Amino acid sequence: MIFAALVADPQAGTLFLLAALWLAAKVGGELAIRFRLPVVAGELGAGLALATLSMAFPIIPPVTSFPAADLLGYLGVVVLMFAVGLESTVPQMIRVGIPALRVAIVGVLVPMAMGLAGAWLMLPKGTHFAVDLFIGACLCATSIGISVQVLREKGAAKSPEGKVIVGAAVMDDVLGLLVLVAVSGVVAVSGTGSGLPWGSLGRTLGLALLFLALALTVGRFLTPHLFRLANRFRGEQLLLPVGLGFAFLLAWLGNQAGLATIVGAYAAGLILEPATIRTLEERELHSLEHLLHPLVVILSPLFFVLMGAKVDPRAFLSWRTIGFALLLAVLGTVGKLVAGYAAGKGLRSIVVGWGMVPRGEVGLIFVATGSALTLGGSPLLSPEVQAGIVGALLLTTIAGPIGLGRVLKTR
Amino acid sequence: MIFAALVADPQAGTLFLLAALWLAAKVGGELAIRFRLPVVAGELGAGLALATLSMAFPIIPPVTSFPAADLLGYLGVVVLMFAVGLESTVPQMIRVGIPALRVAIVGVLVPMAMGLAGAWLMLPKGTHFAVDLFIGACLCATSIGISVQVLREKGAAKSPEGKVIVGAAVMDDVLGLLVLVAVSGVVAVSGTGSGLPWGSLGRTLGLALLFLALALTVGRFLTPHLFRLANRFRGEQLLLPVGLGFAFLLAWLGNQAGLATIVGAYAAGLILEPATIRTLEERELHSLEHLLHPLVVILSPLFFVLMGAKVDPRAFLSWRTIGFALLLAVLGTVGKLVAGYAAGKGLRSIVVGWGMVPRGEVGLIFVATGSALTLGGSPLLSPEVQAGIVGALLLTTIAGPIGLGRVLKTR
Repeated sequence: MIFAALVADPQAGTLFLLAALWLAAKVGGELAIRFRLPVVAGELGAGLALATLSMAFPIIPPVTSFPAADLLGYLGVVVLMFAVGLESTVPQMIRVGIPALRVAIVGVLVPMAMGLAGAWLMLPKGTHFAVDLFIGACLCATSIGISVQVLREKGAAKSPEGKVIVGAAVMDDVLGLLVLVAVSGVVAVSGTGSGLPWGSLGRTLGLALLFLALALTVGRFLTPHLFRLANRFRGEQLLLPVGLGFAFLLAWLGNQAGLATIVGAYAAGLILEPATIRTLEERELHSLEHLLHPLVVILSPLFFVLMGAKVDPRAFLSWRTIGFALLLAVLGTVGKLVAGYAAGKGLRSIVVGWGMVPRGEVGLIFVATGSALTLGGSPLLSPEVQAGIVGALLLTTIAGPIGLGRVLKTR
Repeated sequence: MIFAALVADPQAGTLFLLAALWLAAKVGGELAIRFRLPVVAGELGAGLALATLSMAFPIIPPVTSFPAADLLGYLGVVVLMFAVGLESTVPQMIRVGIPALRVAIVGVLVPMAMGLAGAWLMLPKGTHFAVDLFIGACLCATSIGISVQVLREKGAAKSPEGKVIVGAAVMDDVLGLLVLVAVSGVVAVSGTGSGLPWGSLGRTLGLALLFLALALTVGRFLTPHLFRLANRFRGEQLLLPVGLGFAFLLAWLGNQAGLATIVGAYAAGLILEPATIRTLEERELHSLEHLLHPLVVILSPLFFVLMGAKVDPRAFLSWRTIGFALLLAVLGTVGKLVAGYAAGKGLRSIVVGWGMVPRGEVGLIFVATGSALTLGGSPLLSPEVQAGIVGALLLTTIAGPIGLGRVLKTR
């Protein structure tokens, strides 16, 4: 039952937990700001600190043991990806055009190849090829959120380089997610030990692509009708439940087709054109992005703190892991700087390149996906490999804004 | 783990569930509007319809069986009570003064007495006195949300009657919550069968009052320091996590002192003065109420739908229950109309009275609290009694806006 005055309310503990997690996230974020690091790095660090704390004092239960925090963080990242998707439309992605596409493709292929090479160099020889592939995939996706925030802070969001960075970041998110599907597919079929069954992989990828294709065509055609129907409702406060309900439904459908729920949520944001929701937005005097903002603010830090808390702090006691993280970070950075040169003439390649460096949340979502995968019964990513990747993502997330800030200043 | 591409994501089902619940809430709310009923009545009805549906088709799992929906609805009502508390301050409650206080006190005592009489008349003779008391308590609290909404719709929010209604509604919420504590205390100590241990009840009530007194004095003195500290943080998006974290912490603390979590959340809103949060609000260009709005919009309908789904539809098959609900509704309405006459001269008593009639969410929270209480091992409220109270609340919630609308028109 929901309430129990005088009886200890079992849900009251959740309220305390959430207050504590928000405090940890804000203190971590503040420390990051004081050290001129991105906030997301501080939130991850806060989670890592909490994990270390409950390891040192077993009286403190690990934050990862509370399903309520897990659920809210999960909802937070689904809402975040929907909001990120809303920031761009399918025609916009076509319009930013060729240079962004070149940067995106090179920015996926080169870091992927470099990650593969790094994993092949550093991991023990018996390691399954799928692990190398997964590490490569984790280095692909640029964090739109972080890139956009740095560009805004430096007043360069509307420069040609800024536009290419945002366009390429949007595209390599989609490319990266496709890589994730493909790699996860390889892992799923590799457990059998009977080589790569291309037919099964093809079917899996085909189903995922079919969902995306249908969402971007039929879905885009149907959404105006859905919102016109909603607009005939006389009730108030329709925009947020209808918008979020649509995103959650597509996330669930995408998951049925084999995609991670965040891909569906992102696609939902992408196909929701501003014109489709304008009538409801004008009626409620708020934009959908405006209404989603508090949900993202309150839920997504829970995801990043929990993500940090899932890293085993003992893994960083090994020089091998630290070295692995450093190598991956350098390879990932170099890979994206190379991609910057694919932008072509008339653009400052070094600015574009540094803009693509931060990995942030999308990479972390990849790691979370990978840590749920098993290969022949045992987890795909060992705690050391997982700690190494998260360390590398942290380093690029820290290095990206610093590098971008410097090259924008030397203009 | 959080994500699993290609593996069915166990959390994806939650996304589908939430989308379905929002759809049900909005369709129920829309039907209510078409029949000129308040939205909350439609949301309750939607829950009742879902309960009936899963009873008729056992393939559909009952919505009450999902802990995720329960958690989110619970958070929704805690946030709602915090937001309601924010709408008024302690000095404001003093300023609306004597007429509001008279209306509030009479509006608690008369419906309580009438509820007691009605329960004594209708329920079997062996029924424990605590059940009668609880039924009386459920008829006390006015729903601020519904009253304010009707007054706004009719453009009478700033009339003298409007001010008295809102002031009295705030006060009888607090009085009603105190009644709830007292009644719950009586129930808690009655299970022993050894008569009323006044000492234990006194201690329980004393602890609850001590918490409220400390919150309204020490708490009110400390909050400006807390928010000044938060304001020294350089990070962005502090207002919502700090405000909500403060509310959740007070809700948890209040629960430790024996109060329902919503009382602590309401107190947190009450003691947060506009001046305290103004600096942060100006920094973030949004008011706290503005940031809480989407959370309330998206979470609280889940509470009302689930509340409706907890009503056993079979209970309404009995004429006895229907008669009980009707009688309680009439007694509750008459009790509040009497309270209107306590407002005194210069005010249209009938307007004040009808403004106090809708019970809505606060009464439902009482029922939820009551349904969690046990008396000597068995639940305090039988399904029939619970259905009767919910029915009566529904009827007052429907009758209130209709009556208020009529008497405002005949001005």
